Amino acid sequence: MKHLREELWFNTPHRRGYINITDRVEEAVRRSGVQNGLCLVNAMHITASVYVNDDEGGLIEDYDGWLEELAPHEPISRYRHNRTGEDNADAHLKRQIMGREVVVAITDGRLDLGPWEQIFYGEFDGRRRKRVLVKIVGG
Amino acid sequence: MKHLREELWFNTPHRRGYINITDRVEEAVRRSGVQNGLCLVNAMHITASVYVNDDEGGLIEDYDGWLEELAPHEPISRYRHNRTGEDNADAHLKRQIMGREVVVAITDGRLDLGPWEQIFYGEFDGRRRKRVLVKIVGG
Amino acid sequence: MKHLREELWFNTPHRRGYINITDRVEEAVRRSGVQNGLCLVNAMHITASVYVNDDEGGLIEDYDGWLEELAPHEPISRYRHNRTGEDNADAHLKRQIMGREVVVAITDGRLDLGPWEQIFYGEFDGRRRKRVLVKIVGG
Repeated sequence: MKHLREELWFNTPHRRGYINITDRVEEAVRRSGVQNGLCLVNAMHITASVYVNDDEGGLIEDYDGWLEELAPHEPISRYRHNRTGEDNADAHLKRQIMGREVVVAITDGRLDLGPWEQIFYGEFDGRRRKRVLVKIVGG
Repeated sequence: MKHLREELWFNTPHRRGYINITDRVEEAVRRSGVQNGLCLVNAMHITASVYVNDDEGGLIEDYDGWLEELAPHEPISRYRHNRTGEDNADAHLKRQIMGREVVVAITDGRLDLGPWEQIFYGEFDGRRRKRVLVKIVGG
Repeated sequence: MKHLREELWFNTPHRRGYINITDRVEEAVRRSGVQNGLCLVNAMHITASVYVNDDEGGLIEDYDGWLEELAPHEPISRYRHNRTGEDNADAHLKRQIMGREVVVAITDGRLDLGPWEQIFYGEFDGRRRKRVLVKIVGG
């Protein structure tokens, strides 16, 4: 069984951000030499997501506003977690909606994605260095 | 390592629909010859879900009403994505709640599911041909 | 390809509960002998979740309150599923927010988790014996 492990690092300028990482994951698949297998892509931090959806600016704004409705950042005091001195409880909630990870099939040495499927890093507590794990296994 | 790839196609008569696909996935597992491994089942479209839950009509109505509360279809103008000419922004949101994919264990040549676990295709923008990917890897 | 299957059993004293299962999953990884691969951890019941997040008491209370806001337990009659004689429709909804499963990379014989990533069993309809499946595949 072949396998490859890579970390992708991010430092978003704002608290929240959405970055298309499909090409970077595809490069890792190429480097792995795996022809058929599975590619796990997961946030290694618990206030960020990896998800698959459309690379369309309006939709990304829709996600951002909707997540803020479902789990508002303020008032900070709304959340017990923030009594520890944090202000990011909302980010832990938002990340559960968008998910921690995606598993993508690898077929004939490439990511086996539908026509509009793009892999995104969703950051909900940024402005610091954080990372995503890519783990590829197969033959 | 053995592997198998299959596509399942759907064309739901209404905008939203929920289809039990467990038997079709189980057949793919049989065809793969894999005795122990993993079975990835994912929507290839970004306005649909694959999820595991109960095949009970009342619950499916509950899901449908709840998703419509959390991410209403109307007014269409509520969403920036719809300014591109689409009317399916809500479907992109609903799909994040229900998820893109499931990964199911394969044990002794069969899907290793709990007693009530059923694999569903959840469609949120139907009335056209769309597909699900089944990717099986193992030994 | 090496593989291992284990069940973890739980019986939470209250309807809802959140249990850190990281050490038990790590032990299964050790027993498997897998050095590089994937570890699937999924609820085998459809009113429970496996998710990755922080082991911080305040955050767990935040999750619990937030899920109850998004999908309230009462009134029972709010849900069609409960007309079957059940009272757990809300648990089926809560579980979709938190997710059925996580897939964690295995690297050098260990769970490849970020510094704060902990694997949790989230119970939304407890007070009876229920189980989680751990399936490990790799080389």
